[in-house]
Amino acid sequence: MLMLDPRVVVYALEANYATLSTLMPDGAPQNHVMWVGIDDAHEHLLINTEVHRRKYKNMMSDPRVSIAIWHRDDAHKFVEVRGTVVGTVGGDEARSHISALSWKYLGHDYSFGVTSERVIVRIAPTRQIFHI
Amino acid sequence: MLMLDPRVVVYALEANYATLSTLMPDGAPQNHVMWVGIDDAHEHLLINTEVHRRKYKNMMSDPRVSIAIWHRDDAHKFVEVRGTVVGTVGGDEARSHISALSWKYLGHDYSFGVTSERVIVRIAPTRQIFHI
Repeated sequence: MLMLDPRVVVYALEANYATLSTLMPDGAPQNHVMWVGIDDAHEHLLINTEVHRRKYKNMMSDPRVSIAIWHRDDAHKFVEVRGTVVGTVGGDEARSHISALSWKYLGHDYSFGVTSERVIVRIAPTRQIFHI
Repeated sequence: MLMLDPRVVVYALEANYATLSTLMPDGAPQNHVMWVGIDDAHEHLLINTEVHRRKYKNMMSDPRVSIAIWHRDDAHKFVEVRGTVVGTVGGDEARSHISALSWKYLGHDYSFGVTSERVIVRIAPTRQIFHI
């Protein structure tokens, strides 16, 4: 199993934004600015979304994704993680996680509301590329 | 023909960074932080790259792309343009264009060097989505 590179870990632990690319049903790419987190074992990037979202449906249909995480002070510096969705977690854990991400990025509780159901998507890296 | 939405035009005219998603030969997504420009007629987004780059080869093989452009002061605000590569321009025009993009984003001449050959990639929108 490929671990997350330490340089990716640093980028994902800090409050750096990311774009998640997923595949539409016809195979075309979709692209969305996201918060990103990391698991305690540093094996997976964690995305938190809702189950009715296009990107979530895309990932459940084709698990191949790419995540670019750029440095919040200089977008020229970024890492790209190509990977595969290896699992999801819903319920209380997903609600706690979006709150933790909100504190990380905004410094306060999550305040955007939840339309359907929150879910954590775990992404294992297959290739990691550095522009830093 | 679908024109660029005025909200996309505003985001692309300002010095906002973008991620370009392309498709690898096996159909998996690739994702890269980019400068982005716009043509005078506001019909196409313009990406400037080099002909040996993976993303360029990807676009020549499958022209479907997605570009997310986020506000430089608040990454929560972004537009997504899904579209298709409709043409390329090389030579002097591509070299002038990368210089113009460098002035737009950095305020000075392009200084990163050129490994192979610069090329402008013209992207026509098929769908435009707003998170602003």
